[in-house]
Amino acid sequence: MALSEFSLIQKYFSELGDAQGVALGVGDDAALLNIAPGQQLVVTVDTLVAGVHFPADATPADIAHRSLRVNLSDIAAMGAEPRWFTLALTLPEAHEPWLHEFSQALAEDASTFGCALVGGDTTAGPLTISIQLFGVVPEGEALTRSGATVGDSIYVTGSLGEGAAALSLFDDADFGSSHERSCLHQRFYRPQPRLAEGIKLRGLASAALDISDGLIADLGHIAACSHVGAEVKLEQLPIAPWLKALSDSATVNRWAMSGGDDYELCFTVPQKNRNQVEQLIAQGELLATCIGQITGGDLVGDNVQCVDEKGNLVHVAKSGYQHF
Amino acid sequence: MALSEFSLIQKYFSELGDAQGVALGVGDDAALLNIAPGQQLVVTVDTLVAGVHFPADATPADIAHRSLRVNLSDIAAMGAEPRWFTLALTLPEAHEPWLHEFSQALAEDASTFGCALVGGDTTAGPLTISIQLFGVVPEGEALTRSGATVGDSIYVTGSLGEGAAALSLFDDADFGSSHERSCLHQRFYRPQPRLAEGIKLRGLASAALDISDGLIADLGHIAACSHVGAEVKLEQLPIAPWLKALSDSATVNRWAMSGGDDYELCFTVPQKNRNQVEQLIAQGELLATCIGQITGGDLVGDNVQCVDEKGNLVHVAKSGYQHF
Repeated sequence: MALSEFSLIQKYFSELGDAQGVALGVGDDAALLNIAPGQQLVVTVDTLVAGVHFPADATPADIAHRSLRVNLSDIAAMGAEPRWFTLALTLPEAHEPWLHEFSQALAEDASTFGCALVGGDTTAGPLTISIQLFGVVPEGEALTRSGATVGDSIYVTGSLGEGAAALSLFDDADFGSSHERSCLHQRFYRPQPRLAEGIKLRGLASAALDISDGLIADLGHIAACSHVGAEVKLEQLPIAPWLKALSDSATVNRWAMSGGDDYELCFTVPQKNRNQVEQLIAQGELLATCIGQITGGDLVGDNVQCVDEKGNLVHVAKSGYQHF
Repeated sequence: MALSEFSLIQKYFSELGDAQGVALGVGDDAALLNIAPGQQLVVTVDTLVAGVHFPADATPADIAHRSLRVNLSDIAAMGAEPRWFTLALTLPEAHEPWLHEFSQALAEDASTFGCALVGGDTTAGPLTISIQLFGVVPEGEALTRSGATVGDSIYVTGSLGEGAAALSLFDDADFGSSHERSCLHQRFYRPQPRLAEGIKLRGLASAALDISDGLIADLGHIAACSHVGAEVKLEQLPIAPWLKALSDSATVNRWAMSGGDDYELCFTVPQKNRNQVEQLIAQGELLATCIGQITGGDLVGDNVQCVDEKGNLVHVAKSGYQHF
């Protein structure tokens, strides 16, 4: 069914916007937003292309959840709160059932995570979803990649490797049990943005980012931006027992170290704040694991090293997802 | 040549960001931006797909100029000043000469129009450029689509029809003289965002937008949002003489009324502000033409009518570019 761009936006996307601070939402040349005094604006953008970032036959709901959540994860990694987003949607055709399911799933997550759609653009072309997300953070309290110093402890939230393991679902129809397949499917399409964790880490973490490219590659970004090195202890990586049972240990370690798509936070904590972070963990207020330490920055070659329980260097086969 | 996403962003796009208010630009999970007290944030996004919004063989520089400028035009239509932008770039391959030319052209326009690149995302896939542009406007002074009232005069900036005429370049290799072809090429790839005009119209215009879909279609958006009608006088449309000579009058009128891609501003002025606007025009400070009047809103059918010099209704063949 043919729908003009204007009526398409009105019909499917104008009801997604009534959060705080929106002076003018969908339907004008641009959105108008109010930023409270003492807050900084946090802006991120992520694009998902069908057949590249998700299988071409993914459901509209799955695509919507993943598209919004990978952006929410970036906001979490800054210690910020999500507020608003815009959607640039490129579609081969305006198929109404597709749009209905997609917009419903987007509305569900927008409500869950407290952000409102304030603008967008629909164009004809190969299926591509580009979401731009805005958050706010009290001035000076954002978590960046550049504050790690030698001696800081390195932590990750949640567990690692499931994002990469999920990719096996798309290659191997018989991978895992039906329950495991369902867990991995959820993990891939509905990653949990660690928003509450990011906010708790304000004033405690010296650096933070979210793991999208793989632990070693992403930790390498912290190391590079902070001009330090990092040492990760392989046996301390939080890997779910059920995941360990899914393949041989080399494969499972590769998923956890360099697979990517986990959308957990990786953060560093200076020694002076370590007790406070450990207390949050002990009280169950922060689900995180210490996996290593920031080291001197004058490393030759790789700035992130991984060691086994005997202190021997572990070779990490592939560092990070390369788009090109 | 293969470039990782990270080094690609660092190499080509990290030098594009040093405007005011940027606390943290390209290279972290998100950008951090400072909004001055008393200002509202203005946000717009536009996506351009190769083969849909521009010919697949367009030069990287042409694509860069058009991609940024169509977004700047939306900021102009809000009466805002551009500040920052993000770029979501989907590329079939990371071809360095392409990236070099594209990023240089983007840097040139960013400098010309006073905005800085603060973030982005590169992905592999069919060539798609999605730019999100941020502007600021003093609180309460933004120009929206919804303020037109009966009796307001309707104006457009610059001249109309060239954007649509330019599309003929792509269908007809012998269209126009070489000078005319060059003018139309510029008009298509380097539209002039009417930023100075938008700022001058703060407090004077009752409604405004930029003409991207075609005058009649876009004026229809003002009429719909303002719950009024509009009457346009065909003979008052600003059409360049050289454009009139390029085709028969029916074709030229169609270009001007419904062709789109002009990126001029269309705005309405209440009678109390009319003298002031006419004075700006007379002094050469505002290049704009009165083309009609806002009428009662209880119209059956089309809310925008076009009349000839005798007052007879003119049929407008096609209203607005339909993406689907």
